[in-house]
Amino acid sequence: MLDWLATRFGSDRRLRLPIGDDAAWLDLAPEASCVLATDMLMAGVHFEPPPASPWERIGQKALGVNLSDLAAMAARPVAALVSLALPRGTSEADVRRLYDGVVSLADRFGMVIAGGDTNVYEGPLVLNVAVVGVPMGETVWTRGGGRPGDWLAVTGALGGSILGKHWCPEPRLETAAALVKAGVPVSAAIDISDGLSLDLARLAQASGCGAIVRAADIPIAPAAVQLAQDGGPTALEHALTDGEDFELLITLPPAAWQQVETLETLPVRLTVIGALTDEPGLWLEDQRGECHQLEPRGYWHG
Amino acid sequence: MLDWLATRFGSDRRLRLPIGDDAAWLDLAPEASCVLATDMLMAGVHFEPPPASPWERIGQKALGVNLSDLAAMAARPVAALVSLALPRGTSEADVRRLYDGVVSLADRFGMVIAGGDTNVYEGPLVLNVAVVGVPMGETVWTRGGGRPGDWLAVTGALGGSILGKHWCPEPRLETAAALVKAGVPVSAAIDISDGLSLDLARLAQASGCGAIVRAADIPIAPAAVQLAQDGGPTALEHALTDGEDFELLITLPPAAWQQVETLETLPVRLTVIGALTDEPGLWLEDQRGECHQLEPRGYWHG
Repeated sequence: MLDWLATRFGSDRRLRLPIGDDAAWLDLAPEASCVLATDMLMAGVHFEPPPASPWERIGQKALGVNLSDLAAMAARPVAALVSLALPRGTSEADVRRLYDGVVSLADRFGMVIAGGDTNVYEGPLVLNVAVVGVPMGETVWTRGGGRPGDWLAVTGALGGSILGKHWCPEPRLETAAALVKAGVPVSAAIDISDGLSLDLARLAQASGCGAIVRAADIPIAPAAVQLAQDGGPTALEHALTDGEDFELLITLPPAAWQQVETLETLPVRLTVIGALTDEPGLWLEDQRGECHQLEPRGYWHG
Repeated sequence: MLDWLATRFGSDRRLRLPIGDDAAWLDLAPEASCVLATDMLMAGVHFEPPPASPWERIGQKALGVNLSDLAAMAARPVAALVSLALPRGTSEADVRRLYDGVVSLADRFGMVIAGGDTNVYEGPLVLNVAVVGVPMGETVWTRGGGRPGDWLAVTGALGGSILGKHWCPEPRLETAAALVKAGVPVSAAIDISDGLSLDLARLAQASGCGAIVRAADIPIAPAAVQLAQDGGPTALEHALTDGEDFELLITLPPAAWQQVETLETLPVRLTVIGALTDEPGLWLEDQRGECHQLEPRGYWHG
């Protein structure tokens, strides 16, 4: 696998050393700081064991969830390390397919897979991806920078990721880059990996605020509507609590919104869904203007 | 666990952001380049499942094997990310013990645990540690820089790690730092993780050389002697093939050896055991001066 990685990425000029030594050495210019993230995925928890789950998708997801973290930090991905614990009997072709999934996404964002560790054992498939990035701007986005009165906005549409989107997270790196480049004063950001209500609660708490969300303004994904047709939770409930949407939730001063609306470089629609409040607590304003306490619920592997 | 990490490392000035956001942001001054490594450890492969293996030791080992990689690159460790797949039913106290092991080693080398990912699933314990370091000098050591005629030297003594040393790898970071600081022209380096003969074969091949090792000069660990007393392989064979020694194997021009011998800052003894040769192939010179082909054998999890 290392030979293949070396062939695949050997000409990347940021690698100051061929792949295959004890560790990877790479340039992080122009910044001396870097942004690190890691996520571990396990068969039976984050995906059904193969062959029920396609190997490419597993690889793609493992990198994608990390890139979603970097997008939420406004960090540009540079490198990734991929570690695998493979069930005994896994074929080389399967591992290659998994890497194909990783690499297809890495290529899209100009990343280098700088190394990894591949092992075989008597257990379910476990993958770990660690990523290194650099800030897109002078600083990074955090969960804790929101202020009362800041508007809440989300990328894309929410809910129903189980019908497919959870397999191919679309890390909102280009959206983050466009906002940074335009100088939009994003005050806080988080990626919606565990459900809007839960991740909103985290952002609000880190910012020392509460939040109010207008139900009618939440962009609901067609998949959430489809799920609701089978009974159970409503489409709105899916949008509020389904995990693995991998959209961005950002906050910004209301005055900055016009700048976002006129931004032609945004690759995805941003929708204002509410605002941060002075008082702690989460509220949902329904179609009739009545407010209900919003329970932070979602999907949490921890 | 993140709260605890935040308390534990929150005052580290290299962290440009409190721990607990989507990713970690840290300064890598004075270099803009960084060195990355990762290792995944699995119960049943790298250690017996707890409680047969103490949780602290598991944590210590998981970081230690990565630090050994950084030492072999002459890279100073800066940060680590720790990912865990925990068997359902693992207590918080156990996880804390594992982290205690990680942190005790991280502290010794002034590292920050910049984040991680903790999960529970139906499977054996799997840990992944990813580390970020910076070059100790102007460049890093590689496996491929050795030249014919360069001497081979190892730190410490080899063999028998199964009797205990494999649990508490002593990453040779201080030795690497002392050599770099003194300007010793180390031409190639590798850490002995899979057995001297196997890791020597890797270094020699990467350097486009062969190698000859004098059996009488190989520093044999007391544990190797102890193992040999029970029959089976000789102490020398243990020293040549046992894995998980985590000592350094370096090469350097013979003229540089006097500089090493007079170096008072070396925390561990370095022993010359042979030399790189022009022709490929590994040779072992026995006590009578006769040469035998040396089979690269060792312990390989891959």
